[in-house]
Amino acid sequence: MIYRRVIPVEFNHCDPAGIVFYPRYFEMTNSVVENFFAEVAGQSYAAMMAAREGVPTARLEVDFKAPSRLGERLEWRLSVTRLGGSSIGFRLEAWGVERRLTALLTLVRVGAEGRPIPWEQEMRARITGFMEAQDA
Amino acid sequence: MIYRRVIPVEFNHCDPAGIVFYPRYFEMTNSVVENFFAEVAGQSYAAMMAAREGVPTARLEVDFKAPSRLGERLEWRLSVTRLGGSSIGFRLEAWGVERRLTALLTLVRVGAEGRPIPWEQEMRARITGFMEAQDA
Amino acid sequence: MIYRRVIPVEFNHCDPAGIVFYPRYFEMTNSVVENFFAEVAGQSYAAMMAAREGVPTARLEVDFKAPSRLGERLEWRLSVTRLGGSSIGFRLEAWGVERRLTALLTLVRVGAEGRPIPWEQEMRARITGFMEAQDA
Amino acid sequence: MIYRRVIPVEFNHCDPAGIVFYPRYFEMTNSVVENFFAEVAGQSYAAMMAAREGVPTARLEVDFKAPSRLGERLEWRLSVTRLGGSSIGFRLEAWGVERRLTALLTLVRVGAEGRPIPWEQEMRARITGFMEAQDA
Repeated sequence: MIYRRVIPVEFNHCDPAGIVFYPRYFEMTNSVVENFFAEVAGQSYAAMMAAREGVPTARLEVDFKAPSRLGERLEWRLSVTRLGGSSIGFRLEAWGVERRLTALLTLVRVGAEGRPIPWEQEMRARITGFMEAQDA
Repeated sequence: MIYRRVIPVEFNHCDPAGIVFYPRYFEMTNSVVENFFAEVAGQSYAAMMAAREGVPTARLEVDFKAPSRLGERLEWRLSVTRLGGSSIGFRLEAWGVERRLTALLTLVRVGAEGRPIPWEQEMRARITGFMEAQDA
Repeated sequence: MIYRRVIPVEFNHCDPAGIVFYPRYFEMTNSVVENFFAEVAGQSYAAMMAAREGVPTARLEVDFKAPSRLGERLEWRLSVTRLGGSSIGFRLEAWGVERRLTALLTLVRVGAEGRPIPWEQEMRARITGFMEAQDA
Repeated sequence: MIYRRVIPVEFNHCDPAGIVFYPRYFEMTNSVVENFFAEVAGQSYAAMMAAREGVPTARLEVDFKAPSRLGERLEWRLSVTRLGGSSIGFRLEAWGVERRLTALLTLVRVGAEGRPIPWEQEMRARITGFMEAQDA
């Protein structure tokens, strides 16, 4: 099982060369991860903000394989590569006709002071369940 | 008949006050209008770009009634207020629990030199059809 | 006296037609107003956030006269049109070779509950001073 | 010698947690690199677009060390790590009070068909000159 979301490439994503401007890809990676947390891990970013917590990105690594164009529909595929005490690793791919990019992200759960805090039991259980299904 | 699209308020739309930052509302108005052109008027922005045409915004007027918050789903409602020789007027509203904003936009169809050009017959017919259904 | 700021048109502002995408103009209007508050009114947005206050935009009206292109330098000119109890009106113009747009904005000072609150005495004095110099 | 640019953290860069939202850092990396090309390599992005060329990003790797807050001034420092036949490697750091992030980027010069093309002689000479000064 992989978590998927389709994001159409719209005008606001594209640069003067008519292709997706790379900062806009990161609006997309953020959106995919945000929806994963809400739908799979059971915690919306709104709930995290209200609790003065968050999951900032600590590290990322991206290979851009081919450009994406206005009007295409990108299928984003997310898998969890690692679940640490307070961190999580994601692998995201964006697909059009062929693969457009692969991104590896590391996020860390932090509390009100910006210090790492352990995953809540239920989030951990849900993410672990997702990982088991994904690797099955 | 009104053209509707739902846009969830995600992290990337929100400012340090936790509400939608107004430039992001315009990414939304642009997206709603872009999808209206593709779905109702029968012309995608990708097709327009390929033909070296476009529909830039000439004027807009917005009343922000109430803030929108992270995690809400905004329903955008678009109606056509006027169809000129090469211009078009839109009224857009964004709704959460209550109305969040009303926007009046005027767009002009332009050709490769940036000069106004008349609507293609089929676009005009489709938009006129939409207006008739909307006012019925 | 008019408050001026130069903003170069960079890649991230431009759309597939090679001109400034209108939502990016609003990132610019917000930046000009933000700097006006810090430099003229003596209140940074950071200080406002810390005090749980803000100056959200309640209304805007923009005429886009001519497109702006990648590589141009836009001179933004701001004047204050009205200072109310808790509101303020701005007129902004963006100039390249010729005028590119005129924007009229109304902002309202709000407190922690999102309700209008009166201007602080010092802010009011500074803005009034700016208006007198501007009209002199 | 290192290429430096200061970018103030403004409202539009910040998320509901009051810190720079990571896609906005990439608007900044793009701006720093864009200005490096114009000022050091002698080629503006506007000139590249007119010639139907470009320098898309092929790969990037970022470590986010600490968050940046509204109102800070970030000093960006760019050095060239590698100059290939049609590629270039950059190392960028953003500094506030302490280092906020380190980014390694690889860009490739491409022509109208999106295929890699060799650096122009003058660009190569200028970039090589920069590298010699940087390592001196």
